[in-house]
Amino acid sequence: MSKIICVGLGPGDPELMSVRADRLIRNASIIAFFRKAGRKGQARQIVEGMLSPDVTEIPMEYPVTTEIPVKDQGYNDLLAQFYKEKAALLLEQCQRQEQDIIVLCEGDPFFYGSFMHLYIRLKEQVDIEVVPGITGMSGCWTATGIPMTWGEDILTVLMGTLPEERLTVEMQNTDAFVVMKTGRNLPKIKQALRESNRFSDAWIVSYGTMAKEEIMPLSSYAKDTAPYFTIILVHGRGRRPQ
Amino acid sequence: MSKIICVGLGPGDPELMSVRADRLIRNASIIAFFRKAGRKGQARQIVEGMLSPDVTEIPMEYPVTTEIPVKDQGYNDLLAQFYKEKAALLLEQCQRQEQDIIVLCEGDPFFYGSFMHLYIRLKEQVDIEVVPGITGMSGCWTATGIPMTWGEDILTVLMGTLPEERLTVEMQNTDAFVVMKTGRNLPKIKQALRESNRFSDAWIVSYGTMAKEEIMPLSSYAKDTAPYFTIILVHGRGRRPQ
Repeated sequence: MSKIICVGLGPGDPELMSVRADRLIRNASIIAFFRKAGRKGQARQIVEGMLSPDVTEIPMEYPVTTEIPVKDQGYNDLLAQFYKEKAALLLEQCQRQEQDIIVLCEGDPFFYGSFMHLYIRLKEQVDIEVVPGITGMSGCWTATGIPMTWGEDILTVLMGTLPEERLTVEMQNTDAFVVMKTGRNLPKIKQALRESNRFSDAWIVSYGTMAKEEIMPLSSYAKDTAPYFTIILVHGRGRRPQ
Repeated sequence: MSKIICVGLGPGDPELMSVRADRLIRNASIIAFFRKAGRKGQARQIVEGMLSPDVTEIPMEYPVTTEIPVKDQGYNDLLAQFYKEKAALLLEQCQRQEQDIIVLCEGDPFFYGSFMHLYIRLKEQVDIEVVPGITGMSGCWTATGIPMTWGEDILTVLMGTLPEERLTVEMQNTDAFVVMKTGRNLPKIKQALRESNRFSDAWIVSYGTMAKEEIMPLSSYAKDTAPYFTIILVHGRGRRPQ
């Protein structure tokens, strides 16, 4: 029985994946990856040009992404069924194959990664190794050219799907912060930034470290939506010897 | 005039540095790195065996680490002088040399890294590139074998040097969290964990991803101090389809 190795791909630039991830991907016989139906898939795109010509590819297409609110029971049911099916598929592959299955995952797999849903369903049944990756947020704050956290700064990682009131309180009470899952939540995030008096220090980074990278102070960003790979961040200003 | 490239080394396992960092280090003519006086230096140890035989090494030895409380004016003055001198040294090297200077930095340079103190002193005078790395905390939570953050979990990164009251409040109000800079702050951190009712879910990871790695529930850890490379963490339990 073979095993599953989930490799963190890092923020997007293929040069930013780890030496171990790079080697595992170049030598892979079987790769699996999540993608939105009808798309090539971000994870798959990052490894373009690295794969063996005879690699077997297992795309795992989400039955739904943003079409149904995540809090709906329908969303839960569709996703639960999806993860159950894909877990069974990977397990069956492990039982049939000699070669390990390499699962591609953007960023760092255990940091809000979809693979975690397969991991908890499979970890008692098959050997699973996880290779950490550079998070998207590290790629983004490095791209701004401004250090993110100093001394005793508290860093808070927030999801843009949280209620505006919660976002506002968190932004008020922390030093440095990152908001992920922006997209259509951008107007709400902007409002929370204004209410917490952090708006003028906020940066928006889309496609950090990728060819399409865009970075600017949020005050210069006119649109009310942002691509999926967008992070809002405010840098810390903690203690430094001077 | 040459430039400075600061490379994030990741959590400690050399296989977890990025492809870009690996290549820059193997091809380096000049490397610089911080270390505690009298030690080999953690960053230098990570790259052992990777360096060209004729590399020039510039160790930058902290004048003080934990001997003086960080909030003392004396600590500030010593460190400010140290960073000023090392910034001048690297600038002079850049002006004299053709080859880029590779500065080694554990983890991710812009995430609480010492290099930031040189960066802000030099960024107007010399070209500086920063290569992000896998953070120590990503290495540590991956090593626990338990996913760190799910769905809308809020992640908070705390320094063990913060006052106990602040630590307690932050631990109470967040979902997942990490405490860095543990060492002699461990009794205080444990107390805050107990007061916030998070103690029984806490893990301690020392030397995550390195040969000396030790991982256990904090309740099984008897000592009152921990090595410098120790992180306390509590995993999130956010939304997941089921």
